[in-house]
Amino acid sequence: MRVLHVILFGVGGVGRALVRQMVEHRSLHALRYGLTLPIVALCDRDGAVVDETGIDDEALLQLVDFKAQGGRLANHPLGGPQGDPAGIVDIAGRDGTVVVDCTASEATVPALLLALERGYKIVLANKKPLTVDQEVYDRLAAAGATAGEEGGPAHPLTHHLGMSRWETTVGAGLPVIATLNRLVASGDEVSRIAGTFSGTLGYVMTGLQEGRRFSEIVREAHRLGYTEPDPRDDLGGIDVARKALILARGLGWRLDLADVQVTGLYPPEMDSLSVQEFLDALPQLDETFQRQVAEAAAQGQVLRYAATVEGQQCRVGPTLVSADSPLGRLRGTDNLVEFHTRWYHPNPLVIQGRGAGVDATAAGVLSDIVELAFTG
Amino acid sequence: MRVLHVILFGVGGVGRALVRQMVEHRSLHALRYGLTLPIVALCDRDGAVVDETGIDDEALLQLVDFKAQGGRLANHPLGGPQGDPAGIVDIAGRDGTVVVDCTASEATVPALLLALERGYKIVLANKKPLTVDQEVYDRLAAAGATAGEEGGPAHPLTHHLGMSRWETTVGAGLPVIATLNRLVASGDEVSRIAGTFSGTLGYVMTGLQEGRRFSEIVREAHRLGYTEPDPRDDLGGIDVARKALILARGLGWRLDLADVQVTGLYPPEMDSLSVQEFLDALPQLDETFQRQVAEAAAQGQVLRYAATVEGQQCRVGPTLVSADSPLGRLRGTDNLVEFHTRWYHPNPLVIQGRGAGVDATAAGVLSDIVELAFTG
Repeated sequence: MRVLHVILFGVGGVGRALVRQMVEHRSLHALRYGLTLPIVALCDRDGAVVDETGIDDEALLQLVDFKAQGGRLANHPLGGPQGDPAGIVDIAGRDGTVVVDCTASEATVPALLLALERGYKIVLANKKPLTVDQEVYDRLAAAGATAGEEGGPAHPLTHHLGMSRWETTVGAGLPVIATLNRLVASGDEVSRIAGTFSGTLGYVMTGLQEGRRFSEIVREAHRLGYTEPDPRDDLGGIDVARKALILARGLGWRLDLADVQVTGLYPPEMDSLSVQEFLDALPQLDETFQRQVAEAAAQGQVLRYAATVEGQQCRVGPTLVSADSPLGRLRGTDNLVEFHTRWYHPNPLVIQGRGAGVDATAAGVLSDIVELAFTG
Repeated sequence: MRVLHVILFGVGGVGRALVRQMVEHRSLHALRYGLTLPIVALCDRDGAVVDETGIDDEALLQLVDFKAQGGRLANHPLGGPQGDPAGIVDIAGRDGTVVVDCTASEATVPALLLALERGYKIVLANKKPLTVDQEVYDRLAAAGATAGEEGGPAHPLTHHLGMSRWETTVGAGLPVIATLNRLVASGDEVSRIAGTFSGTLGYVMTGLQEGRRFSEIVREAHRLGYTEPDPRDDLGGIDVARKALILARGLGWRLDLADVQVTGLYPPEMDSLSVQEFLDALPQLDETFQRQVAEAAAQGQVLRYAATVEGQQCRVGPTLVSADSPLGRLRGTDNLVEFHTRWYHPNPLVIQGRGAGVDATAAGVLSDIVELAFTG
C-alpha cells in the first residue's frame, strides 16, 4: 500500500466535504490505486485534533458534524489548542505527507512554508497564499521541483510537475489550472485567457441580459443566499481578481494583486454604506446597467463579468463580448474560461461547468491529493 | 539537467509537427523545466534513423522535410532499415526513455510492449494499441504504476499516475482524458459522457442544421479535402467509436471495439461502391436526413454525430440532443465533450475546442512527454 499522510487546515464547507469524501472513497482508493490517505491532523482556526496513526473514520465524521454545528476543535474532547504551526506540521514527522489548505485565510502561510522545508507536499483550495507576495507564490510553485542535478531553484512554471497543486483555486473542480499547465508545457503561446469565475456575478449578468433591473436581481440573490452576507464581497470583484492573478502567475508573469485592474459592479463611494443602506441604494445603478446592456445588444454583444489575462495585464470587470462567442452564449451560474493560443485560434479552447460548491471543490482537492500521492 | 530520451514511431503529419515543436522549444524546456529531450530514434513504417547521443536539430529538420516530400527513412543517407522492434527499443538502453507512437497502425504494439518490459515510458497519439485487445490496453495502462509494495499488477485506472499517457487520442490537444482521470481519481461518479469527436462530422451536421442537402455538404467537404480520400472513412464513424472505447476503458469498463454500437451516416450496402459511385449515389440519402433534422427541430432538438458512453454501453451515431444543451449549441468543426457526473449535475462539465490538426495534436503529445519527464 502506498501511504500519504494528510494534514488538513480548514474544516469549513470544503474541508468538511473533503473529509466526508475521503471516508466514503477509502475502499475505492485502496482498490484502484493501492492508496491509503490517513488524516493525521484536522485544524480549524485555533484548535486541532491530531493522531499520527490517522484519526479513525468514525471520529472524523463526528468531528465534521461537530464543526458543522459551529463547534471549535479546541473545545472538542478529542481536540485541543493548535499552538505553533510547527507543532502541527511536525506531527507527521516522516516522508509521504501532504498539507491541505482548505481555509480562506493568509494565516496558513507559515505552516505551508514550514511544510515545504520538511519536504512535504502541498494542496491548496485557498487562494490567499498564492496571491500575496510573489516570493511566497514562487516558493509554493517550486515545491520539490528542483531543476537539474545541482538542485538549484526551480522555475515557477514547474509547479504542476513538482509537489504542489492548487487546481480548485480557479473554477473549483474544473480543470482550468491543469489545462493552462499543459498549454505552457507544450510551448503553445497563450495570447489571452478570458473567463467568468463567479456564479453569483454570472447570475447577475444573465439577469441583466434578460432585461431585469440590477437592484431587483441583487436583492433577490441576496435574499436567496446566492451572495455573501454583504453582497459587495461578490460585486466588488476582488475574489475574481485573485483568480485572474493565479492564472497570470501560472503563465510565468510576475505581478501582484494591486496590478490587477478591478472594476466592481458598484461605485467605490457605496463602500461606506451599511448592507441595508447599500441594498436600499441599488436602484440608482439600474439605469446605467440598462443602458450598457442595450448598447451592447445593439452591437451584437453582451455584457459579462469577466477576467481577462492578456498582454502582461489582468483586467476584471464588466466586459463586452460577442454574443456569438463561448462567453457570450453562456447563461446562468456556470464558470467558463476561454484559452486563446497559437494552436487554439480563431476558436479558443473552452472549459465550462460549475465553478463553485463545496462538493465539486472537495472532489478537485481529492484529485490533487491522489495525483501527488504518485508524484516524487 | 533532467534528460528524457525520445524514440519516435511515426513521421507523418503529427510526428513531423512534434519534431519541429521539440526543436523550436528546446531552449524553453531547458530554461523552464531544466529538461532536455534528445530524439534518439526516428522511425517510419520500415526505416529508422538512430543516434543514441541524440539526432542533432539540423538533421532532424532535414529528415522531417525529407519525409514531408514523401521520402522513406530506409533510403535516407542517415537512415537504414528498421528491422526488429527490439533493435530500436534497445537503442536507448538506459533509464529515462519514452517511446512516442504517432503512427495510426497496430504494428507498433510489439515495440510498445517491449518498451514497457524495459521500464520505458510511453506516449500514444495512436488509438489502435488502446482499442485492440483489452489485455494490451491493461498492460499499457498499468505501465510502471505497480500498486503497493508487493509490486502486484496495477489497476488499469492507475494509468495517468503511471508511466503512460495518451491525452491526444481523444479530442487531440483538448484535456479530455486528463479531465476524465481527475473525475475518476476523486471518486466522482461519471454517469454519462457525450461528445462530438470528429470535425468532419461536425461540419456535416452543422450543414444539415442550416438546411443544406447531405449530398451537397459531403461532396463539398470531399472536394475541399475536409474528409479522408474515401469519405466513408469519416462517415462510417469507426474512428469516433475508437475514441468512445478509450473513454469507456478509462472509466474502468471492460469492453471491446465490437461492443460499441456504431451507426454510420450511410447504409452498409453502400460499402461496395467505388468512391465516385458513392459520391454519385449520395442524393438518395438527402430526404431521410432532411426529415430527421426537421423532426428534431420540431421537438426543440438538433441532430449531432455523437459518442455516448453511459450505462456500461457505448453508442456512436446520429443523436438527438436538446438545442439548448452544450452539444446542441455547438456549431462547426470544434469537438465538444460533456461529462455528466454526481457533482456536475444538472449542468455537465464541458470541454470544447479544436479536436484535430497536426500542430494541436503534437503540442498535446509534447505536454504528455514533459509530464512524464517528471514522473517516476
